[in-house]
Amino acid sequence: MSAASTPVIDPVELCRDLIRRPSVTPADEGAMDTLQRVLTDLGFTCRRMAFEGPGGEGREARIENLYARRGTASPNLCFAGHTDVVPTGEAAAWSSGPFAAEVKDGVLYGRGAVDMKGGIAAWVAAVSQIISEGEPNGSLSFLITGDEEGPALHGTKRVVETLMAEGEVIDACVVGEPSSQQQLGDMIKIGRRGSLNTWITVHGKQGHVAYPDRAANPAPVLVRLLAALDAHVLDAGYEAFQPSNLEITTVDIANPATNVIPAEARARLNIRFNPAQTGDGLIDWLNREAGRVQAETGLQITLEHMCSGEAFLTPHGPFVTAVQDAVEASTGIRPEASTTGGTSDARFIRAMCPVLELGLVGQTMHQVDERVPTAELEALTAAYRRVIEAVQTL
Amino acid sequence: MSAASTPVIDPVELCRDLIRRPSVTPADEGAMDTLQRVLTDLGFTCRRMAFEGPGGEGREARIENLYARRGTASPNLCFAGHTDVVPTGEAAAWSSGPFAAEVKDGVLYGRGAVDMKGGIAAWVAAVSQIISEGEPNGSLSFLITGDEEGPALHGTKRVVETLMAEGEVIDACVVGEPSSQQQLGDMIKIGRRGSLNTWITVHGKQGHVAYPDRAANPAPVLVRLLAALDAHVLDAGYEAFQPSNLEITTVDIANPATNVIPAEARARLNIRFNPAQTGDGLIDWLNREAGRVQAETGLQITLEHMCSGEAFLTPHGPFVTAVQDAVEASTGIRPEASTTGGTSDARFIRAMCPVLELGLVGQTMHQVDERVPTAELEALTAAYRRVIEAVQTL
Repeated sequence: MSAASTPVIDPVELCRDLIRRPSVTPADEGAMDTLQRVLTDLGFTCRRMAFEGPGGEGREARIENLYARRGTASPNLCFAGHTDVVPTGEAAAWSSGPFAAEVKDGVLYGRGAVDMKGGIAAWVAAVSQIISEGEPNGSLSFLITGDEEGPALHGTKRVVETLMAEGEVIDACVVGEPSSQQQLGDMIKIGRRGSLNTWITVHGKQGHVAYPDRAANPAPVLVRLLAALDAHVLDAGYEAFQPSNLEITTVDIANPATNVIPAEARARLNIRFNPAQTGDGLIDWLNREAGRVQAETGLQITLEHMCSGEAFLTPHGPFVTAVQDAVEASTGIRPEASTTGGTSDARFIRAMCPVLELGLVGQTMHQVDERVPTAELEALTAAYRRVIEAVQTL
Repeated sequence: MSAASTPVIDPVELCRDLIRRPSVTPADEGAMDTLQRVLTDLGFTCRRMAFEGPGGEGREARIENLYARRGTASPNLCFAGHTDVVPTGEAAAWSSGPFAAEVKDGVLYGRGAVDMKGGIAAWVAAVSQIISEGEPNGSLSFLITGDEEGPALHGTKRVVETLMAEGEVIDACVVGEPSSQQQLGDMIKIGRRGSLNTWITVHGKQGHVAYPDRAANPAPVLVRLLAALDAHVLDAGYEAFQPSNLEITTVDIANPATNVIPAEARARLNIRFNPAQTGDGLIDWLNREAGRVQAETGLQITLEHMCSGEAFLTPHGPFVTAVQDAVEASTGIRPEASTTGGTSDARFIRAMCPVLELGLVGQTMHQVDERVPTAELEALTAAYRRVIEAVQTL
């Protein structure tokens, strides 16, 4: 396909087209088709990957995913993102319809404007500009899922597994999540902590407080275990990361009677951990501690664990530096390379290649009146273009 | 009043008359009048003492009490008890109406049969037998309340305070609670543990688990305090008593969100304590421990305490031995002098005189189909008679 025959995409108009598809997870509503048509016009080979199965909370889900690639040469720079959005909340509270994609006073309103249909539109626009001026170096690809805001069971995780099984190579990846804090370009994310939730139940024997020898109180056993877990120093931090941290998020017995020893006591932990830890390693530690307290007290302790993401870090190096340089050249701000915040699909992509996150200012994400100035979409497009050119010539 | 003119009371018929008055706390329904008429006929000077005020759970209460005395000489042997009863539960589940006082196959059914209209009727019957045969030694008295099963704020506590303020002397007291375990006379209670409930609240600051430095989690602070309290040995026991015992009866945060650090954490303790402790001493200790943890962690900890009764013990001596001898002579069983079980109004009477508890087998108390064999009422009458004769000639 020659450069002359490809269109140049307006990021604002593409973002508006995407917002008008009310793709609240797990619905797609044509969002993926809209994107696929544009990419096809730009010369991408598009491959739809739909995965089905339990979608969490007892529902079956069928999730649309898209892997699109233009070119076969190395390096293959991938843009990753999601077309699904979080619910609107009370639609009447919005200044205009959450899926109307209206522009007022230079600001585009709509669910997904910053998280992250705006990011997708800006990268597509940047790619279209590059292609219109000549054949780019290496390959460009898109890994787009419809299941990032939901349980994330049938999205990026399964696409990555499939591509790796097939031997597909991606050399570097930029995730278009809204990484900027106050001004466009002030932060990129080069890593994220992992997250583990553990539910603890201590099984005792109910009885009357006046006759404790006929009962077995689970409360002090749970307290002993929680005190030991809380006192343990997991690590002292890892490179750019803070120390791994354990929080007791709830303890519940719900015994209304002052004269009754309860039968069961429950608690839940959340551990946010840096790459010095793994989910399995933490689970082993928790199981050992519970086993020790169980042996000491004679009361049965059961644990359930759910690790929703391992920690990852893309170390400082040519990829990170090239992105920082390109953003600074485009926006005038050198982005901080941060590892703060929650999880993203970068946790899955890290298995394939170095990955970082760069996108819009996220302040209105998940809120009523989510919005982005059209000038910020244009500026992100310019920054993305410099990033693509810099990374493809490393 | 001559012996010849006083009636001899049938304990079964008097118990039935009392059961037919549905005196569920704080109602009286004529139960106190029924008893007062019989005591007046037996030559007692009856004094009604009604106390009013907050009755617990936001209600106002007016409670009937009775202090009746026959004679002015020493020693004054008092019988203490209550005419109020606990609710019936589901009335339809009873074999006959809970206030019908039916006798079937030699068993009297009804709410209060054992706890403790039966005990009152047996002591009255024993007194009537003694009087019918000649003038008894010393004085006999009754301290009867209508507020034992409820909050016990306007019952025995206030009667004792009033009598002590007036200089009234009681030399010994038998509380007619159902003290027997398997067979009539197998146990008397010579002491009871005290009981203290404490509510603990740790005030933290809510936040996201990914940003613990912006929050203050109250859960580990509560866990630290509870672990310290639970590990502390209060005492090694006191004479006939087991060591004082602390139970964590509930811990509650009720935080449904896995990614949120909660704002508050609550727990409740119950301490059953022997006479080596006092309620105030335990409260001081709990406040000191909470203050220490508050100083160490910087999180505010608030405590609320409710001491529902101090510990008491009537030591072994002539009174206890005389009662044990009399019961053994009457029933063939030597009663164990125990300090087990919950609280009773003996906790208030101990301020005036040595006190112990002797009564029916308590197995059906507070249950549907509460009942007593009529033969057991007769046997308790005989045992009470020997107790009165023995104690009055000490």
